[in-house]
Amino acid sequence: MRTNFRGWVIMSITYIACFLANFTLLYAQNGVSTRYINAAELGVSGKVEHEGHLYHRVDTGRHADLPTNVKFFWTHAAGTYISFRSNSSQISAKWCTTSARPYNNLTAVAFEGLDLYVLEDGAWKFAGVGRPGHADCSESILVKNMSQEARDYLMYLPLYDGITNLEIGVDSTASLESLESPFQKQVLVYGTSITQGASASRPGLAYPSLLARKMGVDFINLGTSGSAKMEIQVARFLASQPMDAFIIDCVPNSSVDNIRERTAPFINAIREKHPEIPIIAIGGVIFESGNFDQQISRDIEQRNLDFLQEIERLQRDDRHLYYISPEGLLGSDHEGTIDGTHPNDIGFDRMVQKIKPILENILKRYHLL
Amino acid sequence: MRTNFRGWVIMSITYIACFLANFTLLYAQNGVSTRYINAAELGVSGKVEHEGHLYHRVDTGRHADLPTNVKFFWTHAAGTYISFRSNSSQISAKWCTTSARPYNNLTAVAFEGLDLYVLEDGAWKFAGVGRPGHADCSESILVKNMSQEARDYLMYLPLYDGITNLEIGVDSTASLESLESPFQKQVLVYGTSITQGASASRPGLAYPSLLARKMGVDFINLGTSGSAKMEIQVARFLASQPMDAFIIDCVPNSSVDNIRERTAPFINAIREKHPEIPIIAIGGVIFESGNFDQQISRDIEQRNLDFLQEIERLQRDDRHLYYISPEGLLGSDHEGTIDGTHPNDIGFDRMVQKIKPILENILKRYHLL
Repeated sequence: MRTNFRGWVIMSITYIACFLANFTLLYAQNGVSTRYINAAELGVSGKVEHEGHLYHRVDTGRHADLPTNVKFFWTHAAGTYISFRSNSSQISAKWCTTSARPYNNLTAVAFEGLDLYVLEDGAWKFAGVGRPGHADCSESILVKNMSQEARDYLMYLPLYDGITNLEIGVDSTASLESLESPFQKQVLVYGTSITQGASASRPGLAYPSLLARKMGVDFINLGTSGSAKMEIQVARFLASQPMDAFIIDCVPNSSVDNIRERTAPFINAIREKHPEIPIIAIGGVIFESGNFDQQISRDIEQRNLDFLQEIERLQRDDRHLYYISPEGLLGSDHEGTIDGTHPNDIGFDRMVQKIKPILENILKRYHLL
Repeated sequence: MRTNFRGWVIMSITYIACFLANFTLLYAQNGVSTRYINAAELGVSGKVEHEGHLYHRVDTGRHADLPTNVKFFWTHAAGTYISFRSNSSQISAKWCTTSARPYNNLTAVAFEGLDLYVLEDGAWKFAGVGRPGHADCSESILVKNMSQEARDYLMYLPLYDGITNLEIGVDSTASLESLESPFQKQVLVYGTSITQGASASRPGLAYPSLLARKMGVDFINLGTSGSAKMEIQVARFLASQPMDAFIIDCVPNSSVDNIRERTAPFINAIREKHPEIPIIAIGGVIFESGNFDQQISRDIEQRNLDFLQEIERLQRDDRHLYYISPEGLLGSDHEGTIDGTHPNDIGFDRMVQKIKPILENILKRYHLL
């Protein structure tokens, strides 16, 4: 009896201690206990190669012949995302990036932060951002105080930085399961800093991601800041990817000489491996920095003329090659950029309003929509 | 003859030396020699007080009773601008700010950069930005390669930093003259971080500045980040300003208690000194962070209900008090903020599209337009 009583006391103390420990753990942060799952367990979508570094868009180590700058920018996580389902009341994240600091035309949220969307009534709806701190590793609650229902999430990764580690946090009692990308068809977008996402205010507002959420097609971001110059090695690499369509948006980075010498071999290299799919070339956005700078104005005009001429010449033998004019891509009030070159969120919104119906028209012809 | 020859040689050498020195100076930077003029000689517009620190919106030293945070944010240059005329082919700037670093939801260009517009065919057209470097002092060419015609300029100063010195650079041979503000009537906008400009991509895209350029009225930015809580001292200060109208946009910073207790005394204090001018109250933007966060959603809804109730009660005795509903201020696709709270450029564009016709309607009644 005494032994039993002692056992009961010990058991009770143990229970109370366990309860207190659990309680402390449970309400440690914002009244909710969080368990973290490494994103490596969930997988990363929006990439072209899944070998190599989890958060690099391309396994650049395997492609020694690619230009150094192109490879560097493809280590940035632009356009990649984690797709998951959870019934958590709160979504948080711990993540680390390289030691790079935001450029003066990008917010830290866009440069090295996270951006979360929820599927609701068939549409992706903004839920919250992961705000980076000043150190290389950050911790942030993206959204909290939700009703505890199962939801499908997209978490976009940083536009201009490489991730070295990412953990996603949910309520300790909540479910968390990896999902396949919600987008079936894949369109590869080869382009400049504008494609990479400069200067959207947050990662999910880069134009390929805006198009993806609105059209239900994965627009894979292969923007390479300042370095979209149509090298033949890049063309061969793109051609090796099993895609449903290609978008070529490189004029803002390609010189007149690049355009005259490289457009045909670049597009032909892709066409050779993909004889029947749409290749869509976009003219270079008319730089607002050319509003008064006559040299910039003449230069982009010349590049666009030359690019159009090259595309029209190729179109004579290529009925799957399309062209989207840059006229009016950023609207008409001259407020669509942050710095005269890079679209701000108004600029990207207007770009998407203009090119989405054109893309829909093309993709429907190929039963991709 | 020999003396004359020697004199000729010396004179020639002197001329050549002078020419070379001038040439070096003349083409030192970007092929153009620049002379810098301290902006103190040109004057700063878009402020309510012109005594005290040139780049503070308010001479806060004279107002010991104002809340500390309000005074701090009013030392930021948000919404202030230099108005000048020049026939220079290039406009550059050297400027120094405090040692503050950009918040994670603002670009450095918006936080501590410059933004330049030119009057063309009666409208203000974007010309270029001053990009800050990593140090407190920066140097930047805002626009170059222009035809050498006289143009009227607006140069907006940083949204979230205090300027300690600013020099404007023009071609050494070009004219530069100070202009009065191009805007005659003055509407004071008292508000939050959203009014102050978070998170426009560049200084000229904060909503008061967008309204000013589009309507030709000076919307004086007295946004005070996180601190628009309707203290009676602030009301008395605003009331002391000789304005043509007031906009009150403080709900996102004011608690339910603030709204219930302070709305009436705040508006009445302004009304007492300005019996016949329009006072326009704007409801708080519906936070996109409340899309899934039920607490935020309920809280902003309650604050807006209480604010509307207070305004409607005051309107019974005040026929010059107006209300603008927050419904749809940021559009309907949930992409109008950077972080769920602060409008990005799409958000500000939509705000202006909604409130501009309402403001035009009101200001016309008072012959302010």
